[in-house]
Amino acid sequence: MAHLNVSDEVPTPEMNEVAARSKQDRIKAFEDVYKKLAADVIADLPQFEMPADAIAYVAKLLDYTVPGGKMNRGLSVIDTLEILLRRELTDDEFFKASVLGWTIEWLQAFFLVADDLMDSSHTRRGEPCWFRLPEVGLIAANDSLILESCIWRIFRTYFGNERYYVDLVHLMQDVSFKTQLGQMLDLKSAKPGVVNFSNFTLDTYRRIVKYKTAFYSFVLPVHMAMLMTGRFTPKDFKDAEAILVPMGEYFQIQDDYLDCYGDPKTIGKIGTDIQDNKCGWLIIQALQRASPAQRKILEENYARDNEASIAKVKEVYKQLNIAKVFHDYEDKAYVDIKQQIDRIQTVPKEVFNSFLGKIFKRQH
Amino acid sequence: MAHLNVSDEVPTPEMNEVAARSKQDRIKAFEDVYKKLAADVIADLPQFEMPADAIAYVAKLLDYTVPGGKMNRGLSVIDTLEILLRRELTDDEFFKASVLGWTIEWLQAFFLVADDLMDSSHTRRGEPCWFRLPEVGLIAANDSLILESCIWRIFRTYFGNERYYVDLVHLMQDVSFKTQLGQMLDLKSAKPGVVNFSNFTLDTYRRIVKYKTAFYSFVLPVHMAMLMTGRFTPKDFKDAEAILVPMGEYFQIQDDYLDCYGDPKTIGKIGTDIQDNKCGWLIIQALQRASPAQRKILEENYARDNEASIAKVKEVYKQLNIAKVFHDYEDKAYVDIKQQIDRIQTVPKEVFNSFLGKIFKRQH
Ligand SMILES: [Mg+2]
Ligand SMILES: [Mg+2]
Ligand SMILES: [Mg+2]
Ligand SMILES: [Mg+2]
Ligand SMILES: [Mg+2]
Ligand SMILES: [Mg+2]
Repeated sequence: MAHLNVSDEVPTPEMNEVAARSKQDRIKAFEDVYKKLAADVIADLPQFEMPADAIAYVAKLLDYTVPGGKMNRGLSVIDTLEILLRRELTDDEFFKASVLGWTIEWLQAFFLVADDLMDSSHTRRGEPCWFRLPEVGLIAANDSLILESCIWRIFRTYFGNERYYVDLVHLMQDVSFKTQLGQMLDLKSAKPGVVNFSNFTLDTYRRIVKYKTAFYSFVLPVHMAMLMTGRFTPKDFKDAEAILVPMGEYFQIQDDYLDCYGDPKTIGKIGTDIQDNKCGWLIIQALQRASPAQRKILEENYARDNEASIAKVKEVYKQLNIAKVFHDYEDKAYVDIKQQIDRIQTVPKEVFNSFLGKIFKRQH
Repeated sequence: MAHLNVSDEVPTPEMNEVAARSKQDRIKAFEDVYKKLAADVIADLPQFEMPADAIAYVAKLLDYTVPGGKMNRGLSVIDTLEILLRRELTDDEFFKASVLGWTIEWLQAFFLVADDLMDSSHTRRGEPCWFRLPEVGLIAANDSLILESCIWRIFRTYFGNERYYVDLVHLMQDVSFKTQLGQMLDLKSAKPGVVNFSNFTLDTYRRIVKYKTAFYSFVLPVHMAMLMTGRFTPKDFKDAEAILVPMGEYFQIQDDYLDCYGDPKTIGKIGTDIQDNKCGWLIIQALQRASPAQRKILEENYARDNEASIAKVKEVYKQLNIAKVFHDYEDKAYVDIKQQIDRIQTVPKEVFNSFLGKIFKRQH
């Protein structure tokens, strides 16, 4: 198993090639761990007297909803652990970090299955949403719970004897609860089709993003790797969180920008935030700058699912130069986060710089 | 705080009166514990930056879905602990057993909120189902998760320092997973309106009931009380389960009987199993006994939501004397469970006799 070296050397083209190849190996090794974990879950089911068709259903649920994403969250547990230990991981460490990484992907699947149902979405990762399959429908709500239960079972199997086991369970419980609170805020912030811009404030937006996305996507992988090392104090965990939450906010603002301005070929989907009445960063910026006439156009065309309305909203964004507002924000966010990273004493700065490097000016 | 005495004396009318009064006191004391736990959850929310309307929403969710049931599951943790300790509980023991009892009620709320959504039910405990409220809808899927998260938080607050804390978390994780598997079997056993009697076997029925109901309603409260005492081995837990699972099955068969033959005034609802296409005990018994002509009537009228069809199904039940089939089953089930109780050596028989006494020949 080949792992990336953490190094301060300036990479040569040759090193880049090696790094790219070992990155591919690493992704392959990470994906193999999913196969093992899914096989574990399935192998457990006969002890619960599940008949063959129920077992096949769970197998399909797992393969349809857990793998197949970008896996950034899961992979970053491995990357972070390697940075923290300042050396290549042993096979056991690589495996354990991968298992934890997959529990984040599992947590995401648990939330996305329910989220797509609640949002009445149509597609996810280019396929119909799980609940849209003819044999699924509303049962997806229970399937989502089964996905969550897998996490506890995986923890118990692979970490039940670790000194940090209870902390790990608590970490996951806490992050899950925070994500649920974020989902609640998001779901209550806008009803489909009902335009009410009075809730569309930066304050509301930040809170939704922090709870709905930042904890599970940014804080969780780093906290997991920190737990594995056994080297950090509660204050260190808080220090890391204080940087990772703003980074998650920046990431989501990029997501909102790309939804409108990204290349559908590159981002892999066609944005729908405008017609979905999302309390997104672009509309909030537009509302702060709109004249009464422009605001009226936004009110009359936001949350309407037709090309003409969407074009009118985008036209106001253009008049207000919202793309430039974003680029200015992005440059400032980068500097701000960099300054925060420079101040941290307890957790290696490279953890955060590596994260930031992966997302700065991302196109997808 | 008055608690019932466990006594082998034959009760006098006076003793009955005292017992009845202290039973009322006990229920009142138990209900007060809910108020404290709900207040804890609410008091925690500002630390997660939840705005006032979100806090009010969670408060409404809790009060609407957690209390207001029969509370048999929750109360039986207290009853069982008292039998196991063979004495009145101290205030602290009563409180702790009540907290555990409420986590079962919370677990039930977590499942029922999702269940009503998945079953497209209309009423629950005489009120509209939570998801039917105009401000809720599909958001109920996320609300259900918030209810579950409360359980982990309550455990941590009140049991985080107990030597059995991790066992308690594992017990709840396991029972929750089993209930999810039972829900999956139930949801896949019958599609609304599509009559397919080939799945309606006693084997399928037993598996659904065991996983969907028996673990959380019967095994969980006894296992919780056993954990609190610290006196039992893993084998003792298995022994108790071996009696409590058949008791749960018996309980569910009563439920199916009462759905059709119970007095709506006494059971508090009008049965809907026939029109809901339930894989219930009565239809399974009828199919085992029906002539080809009777089976045809059942096929043409089961799962149809109109009075004439329901009456035709009930007429076949009458011809086959299904009510007597149930009464014969009930007498036999009682004897069988009694014999099992007589054989158990490890856990006091009174635990199970008390449970059985509460449900034998129940009318609601
Ligand atoms: Mg969504
Ligand atoms: Mg959503
Ligand atoms: Mg987006
Ligand atoms: Mg139901
Ligand atoms: Mg149901
Ligand atoms: Mg029933």
